[in-house]
Amino acid sequence: MPSEFDLIARYFSRPRVRRSDVVLGVGDDCALLEVPPGRQLAVSIDTLVEGTHFACGAEPRALGHKALAVNLSDLAAMGAEPAWATLALTLPTADEDWVEAFAAGFLALAEVHGVQLVGGDTTRGPRSVTVQVHGFVEPGRALRRDGARPGDLVYVTGTLGDAGLALLAQQGLFVGLDTVAALRERLDRPTPRLAVGRALVGVASAAIDVSDGLAADLGHICAASGVGATLYLDRLPCSTAVRTYVAETGDWSVPVAAGDDYELCVTVPAARQGEIEALAAELPAGLHWVGMIERPPGVRLVLPDGSMLDRAPAGYDHFARDG
Amino acid sequence: MPSEFDLIARYFSRPRVRRSDVVLGVGDDCALLEVPPGRQLAVSIDTLVEGTHFACGAEPRALGHKALAVNLSDLAAMGAEPAWATLALTLPTADEDWVEAFAAGFLALAEVHGVQLVGGDTTRGPRSVTVQVHGFVEPGRALRRDGARPGDLVYVTGTLGDAGLALLAQQGLFVGLDTVAALRERLDRPTPRLAVGRALVGVASAAIDVSDGLAADLGHICAASGVGATLYLDRLPCSTAVRTYVAETGDWSVPVAAGDDYELCVTVPAARQGEIEALAAELPAGLHWVGMIERPPGVRLVLPDGSMLDRAPAGYDHFARDG
Repeated sequence: MPSEFDLIARYFSRPRVRRSDVVLGVGDDCALLEVPPGRQLAVSIDTLVEGTHFACGAEPRALGHKALAVNLSDLAAMGAEPAWATLALTLPTADEDWVEAFAAGFLALAEVHGVQLVGGDTTRGPRSVTVQVHGFVEPGRALRRDGARPGDLVYVTGTLGDAGLALLAQQGLFVGLDTVAALRERLDRPTPRLAVGRALVGVASAAIDVSDGLAADLGHICAASGVGATLYLDRLPCSTAVRTYVAETGDWSVPVAAGDDYELCVTVPAARQGEIEALAAELPAGLHWVGMIERPPGVRLVLPDGSMLDRAPAGYDHFARDG
Repeated sequence: MPSEFDLIARYFSRPRVRRSDVVLGVGDDCALLEVPPGRQLAVSIDTLVEGTHFACGAEPRALGHKALAVNLSDLAAMGAEPAWATLALTLPTADEDWVEAFAAGFLALAEVHGVQLVGGDTTRGPRSVTVQVHGFVEPGRALRRDGARPGDLVYVTGTLGDAGLALLAQQGLFVGLDTVAALRERLDRPTPRLAVGRALVGVASAAIDVSDGLAADLGHICAASGVGATLYLDRLPCSTAVRTYVAETGDWSVPVAAGDDYELCVTVPAARQGEIEALAAELPAGLHWVGMIERPPGVRLVLPDGSMLDRAPAGYDHFARDG
């Protein structure tokens, strides 16, 4: 007597990715998995809750993509190679159209990165999505938060603030129709920087993904490493839309304090600068120098005119949030 | 600027269990873990949702126990040795007293089984708890659902129906004060049968934990194995309270169809009967013969007078549910 929620689970039971290290996938009490010899397992779990992390009525295909992407971003930040995912889906009703679209978004991104869905649970309740990802990394080579040293250079991938500007546009800020579509794409369908993370293994001294905003996330590296940092705001890689917004408003919070970009922030010993610049030229996402690791704790923000931004950027509260 | 939800996470950041195979625990983008050489990884993820799986106002210490226990029960059903857990906790408010009690229940059970909490996520939203457990099993030796063969004997641990009777008592059934306390303990604080599962590796042909009710869960074994089964209801191990209830009402649904007991149901080749009876005598949970695996599909229920129960037991709907 399968329940309607068992039926829903069928959308996930025929994986398009079939990995040889999955001994037993969806359908038993546990999945059975084989970590390759000489590899450590990297795991991360994240929940997206309706009304907190996504709006009621959010497009399910994009949500399926994002739920997996934000977890893969954690693997990218460790320099890990993705392998498996599990999914706990809570839904108010057994809406098969919704699940089919969600599964399509989730499984399409999984296929891009060779990730097999190996287990899950579907329950009735207020809508939320919890994903755990599993990846492999060479022993002692993971990109941790605690390896930054004074003198290291700070780099970020991609562009910063697009997702934050998309949130402001949702709240009524006028940015133009073409622009808003591009920004929404960045907010709704972030790109986990897995190739960058893998390329930085053995080069970067520390890494984190930018989910809470660059200043906060670099602050996490600094706290874990027992160091501080200075960021040069005129070096932040920004799209034209974000650059225009900052020029017009003087509000640096969008590229500095808004989260949800899921770019990587990494620190690199100065001696490896040549390597990192060569790598930057090859990587589609780019890798941009934005600051320095220093001995004094805290994260200092230097404005384009050389003065210090001596308080949290205006507009920070737009992005303050829990969990 | 840690949020109030970050503060909550601190209740989980100082594990009492410190395993040598945990390279990096809570606090980075990922946990880093080492599966022992020559072992497969068994993983299971389950969600408990307020209003679906537990009542609003449920005692948080018991809920912390149960959230981990139901997942450990999945490892038990595979014959796996537990190792690590991750926890995704969604809460409407940052109620530190609630979290402290929840963490106490969760971590106490984790300590009993040597399980280290290695990662998590705390988010704001309607209350729910998702746990993933990770364990080890020898390659090719896991207790799967698909190994039952005609002629195998069916055994169950412990007693069946206590949790179901506790639910009926909550709905108003009179069972007496002492009895209701004992039944509630079984419903609220189930015991994962990990030692039984480990002892059955190499002996049992298939296993599952009884979360949906014995008939349904044995049905899952039968469907996965391409076989059927007959259960002899007078052989079901029951507490005095459940035995009295069935005698007075004739309602077999409590031991047959109610879930939440988290006992194990296993099948064993007839040639191993001696081994299993010897094992049964040693195990505190016991191991009770209840039926046979046969070729015709479906699960047949034989009443004490030898007649067949030819429809779903009366009262089945008490326990029908989704997810």
